[in-house]
Amino acid sequence: MSAPAYLTGDKKAIQDFLDRFDVFLFDCDGVLWSGDHLFPGTVETLELLRSKGLRIVPDQHGSVLPGKQTIFVTNNSTKSRAEYRKKLTGLGIPCTVEEIFGSAYSSAVYISRILQLPANKKKVFILGEAGIEAELASENVPFLGGSDPKYRRDITPEDYRLIASSDPSLIDPEVGVVLCGLDFHVNYLKLSLGFHYVRFHGAQFLATNIDSTLPNSRTFFPGAGATTTAPLAKALGTEPVALGKPSQAMMDAIEGKFHFDRARTCMVGDRMNTDIQFGIKGKLGGTLAVLTGVSTKEEFTTGDMRPSAYVDTLSDLLEGA
Amino acid sequence: MSAPAYLTGDKKAIQDFLDRFDVFLFDCDGVLWSGDHLFPGTVETLELLRSKGLRIVPDQHGSVLPGKQTIFVTNNSTKSRAEYRKKLTGLGIPCTVEEIFGSAYSSAVYISRILQLPANKKKVFILGEAGIEAELASENVPFLGGSDPKYRRDITPEDYRLIASSDPSLIDPEVGVVLCGLDFHVNYLKLSLGFHYVRFHGAQFLATNIDSTLPNSRTFFPGAGATTTAPLAKALGTEPVALGKPSQAMMDAIEGKFHFDRARTCMVGDRMNTDIQFGIKGKLGGTLAVLTGVSTKEEFTTGDMRPSAYVDTLSDLLEGA
Repeated sequence: MSAPAYLTGDKKAIQDFLDRFDVFLFDCDGVLWSGDHLFPGTVETLELLRSKGLRIVPDQHGSVLPGKQTIFVTNNSTKSRAEYRKKLTGLGIPCTVEEIFGSAYSSAVYISRILQLPANKKKVFILGEAGIEAELASENVPFLGGSDPKYRRDITPEDYRLIASSDPSLIDPEVGVVLCGLDFHVNYLKLSLGFHYVRFHGAQFLATNIDSTLPNSRTFFPGAGATTTAPLAKALGTEPVALGKPSQAMMDAIEGKFHFDRARTCMVGDRMNTDIQFGIKGKLGGTLAVLTGVSTKEEFTTGDMRPSAYVDTLSDLLEGA
Repeated sequence: MSAPAYLTGDKKAIQDFLDRFDVFLFDCDGVLWSGDHLFPGTVETLELLRSKGLRIVPDQHGSVLPGKQTIFVTNNSTKSRAEYRKKLTGLGIPCTVEEIFGSAYSSAVYISRILQLPANKKKVFILGEAGIEAELASENVPFLGGSDPKYRRDITPEDYRLIASSDPSLIDPEVGVVLCGLDFHVNYLKLSLGFHYVRFHGAQFLATNIDSTLPNSRTFFPGAGATTTAPLAKALGTEPVALGKPSQAMMDAIEGKFHFDRARTCMVGDRMNTDIQFGIKGKLGGTLAVLTGVSTKEEFTTGDMRPSAYVDTLSDLLEGA
């Protein structure tokens, strides 16, 4: 397997690399920022890409548009696309809701358009935050759980009895999907309900994403894959269908909107097993790794799968201006 | 591999089987009861065993005692041995604290007597309930976390900052062990602290037990292995040292107290991968499975490991009276 090109400090290599692509898919946490800390040069790097050259858009009858297309692809399900847009613009990165793809949105699209749920099993029980609720609502998918205070409490002896007897006050017979995402309010009651819906009531087990950790405050915290998916997977003895990166369900959802040329598209990310794998599995023209997040240089340069190229930080690309 | 003997309804086979053993190790949940529901005939079956024959006790200079020895071995860490004794006597099963071995006690013994923790790393951060606290206290092991209300709350933005900066208000530098058990009050704050202690502060990752499910109210709920161990294992990318069944650390602790003859000891349980495996790995003279708990007849009769014998319910042994 060929070693990924190291672009930092190599102006010519950067320019050649950028010229190969019309579309850049960006992971956010660990690439553009860590938690609420924006990496220096992020805004300028995005501006550079958006100003460079011309691109031909396949689905618009070959329209020619200025600059490269930038799309933000995040596995963080706690925020809706609208909230993510607010975060991006607040940090000085202008963008539209359409340029943002989150794993909550990808999951909502999968549930509403791909899954053929029976008419009496249309509801989704959420282990996660309000971002998932907003995206399910945007696709008209009914849901329960999530941020509802009804479930943000300790389990009681009465709950055990009600769950065991499938009492409709706690077990809704119309739940056909349990969707796990990052839940900062995970608790034993919600885990018990999610477990019962899948194990005893035929619900499908889905996850917005299965990231093991979450970059925050320049360190790491447990991710969605650890917080809600791992407990249910262990209790159930089965793994969920995961809809964030590296699932190609997410790539298909992005392509459904942008109809980009995969050969001229590059995925930029900090995680080997989500971002880079996402781009490689999607047969994109290239993948670019940054060293400001989860995966190390060793993982990118010695693993079974490798990115096309890597830089120390995203802003190293500014040298290609 | 030979098929396990099916004893139910076969008086002669039951009598021959019971005669082979002086000591019976009993799992509790799923064998004697489910949650708060005592299985019919449990009390009478234990009385029968305790009244049958004579036994020679190896460590007491060959003393001869009447009846068989019954020992209760549970992976449930939420109760201390003293609380378990209360539960047993309350259900009509007389017993002493010494006849009870829980995974919390096994863990406390392992930490205090086997682990050589440095003097400045003696504290245990608990993800679990008061049973673990009581057993650590009985072995004079200092601890934090557990049932302390300080940790039973939502995580805040300030917490992220304090954890990231290893602030002593949240990160105690003397923590050398993170001990995971069943925690009905699991939350993101405790998971984040457990993760940070192991990942960034060199703490050892231990689990009282790794049962995936917990029998309760005649059905199942997420077990210790699902609720606290699986999230940390996923976030950390490593598995814990588990001290409940089938870990032989627990068998060694029991033997340390009773000095029984393993060849004349039988483990009785409802779970193939904890109870029965515990007995087989411990080279006991026999293992007896019951069908009132987690594992199915198929698992007991067709798997890679198999019990010596099985009955539909524990009280089927009464026919051997």
